[in-house]
Amino acid sequence: MADNCLFCKIAKGEIPSQKVYEDENVFAFRDINPQAPAHIVIIPKKHIKDLNSLSEGDDLIIGYVQAAAATIALQFPEMKNGYRVVNNCGADAGQTVFHIHYHLLGGRSFGWPPG
Amino acid sequence: MADNCLFCKIAKGEIPSQKVYEDENVFAFRDINPQAPAHIVIIPKKHIKDLNSLSEGDDLIIGYVQAAAATIALQFPEMKNGYRVVNNCGADAGQTVFHIHYHLLGGRSFGWPPG
Repeated sequence: MADNCLFCKIAKGEIPSQKVYEDENVFAFRDINPQAPAHIVIIPKKHIKDLNSLSEGDDLIIGYVQAAAATIALQFPEMKNGYRVVNNCGADAGQTVFHIHYHLLGGRSFGWPPG
Repeated sequence: MADNCLFCKIAKGEIPSQKVYEDENVFAFRDINPQAPAHIVIIPKKHIKDLNSLSEGDDLIIGYVQAAAATIALQFPEMKNGYRVVNNCGADAGQTVFHIHYHLLGGRSFGWPPG
């Protein structure tokens, strides 16, 4: 856990969220500014800044997060016809919280380009 | 390798592509319809249909693909200020090739929502 990290605090329950999934490695909650009928933020419990900051072994955690995305999608009838998973790394992509997170969005058709 | 899979054929070199990265697990090439100054498609060499179709151990492969995205991004000066990584799973998301792939996009600012 990193001091003063919003997502670390959410994963520990110190800041409330609409949790939809939790296991030993992963925490997931509804985005407070949803961009689709179902919009979930999935984070590893380990504090990793972004995709550029993976340490040895972190790829296993990130793969676990991807698999969790599929597991979580099964919870949402809105995602039965598909979903989009998005990671923003850095300023150009619009990353605002520097604890790596994946957006899982479903419940509508998604356009291209992806933003 | 799956018969008649476009991306399996690209990874084997049977169909030409603008390759930007390859290792024992991953193949990456420029998208033929780029949506950003740098737009790369990253695939595992193993044929996996989509994120809903992971078998045991595939999460390790997918994590490896994510780490490769960060490695590939280092090749592109356009991505020094960030990049977006996108996976489309299923019809709603616009998945058109059913070999799991991650879009790596950089070189401009990206809007929100992501499509």
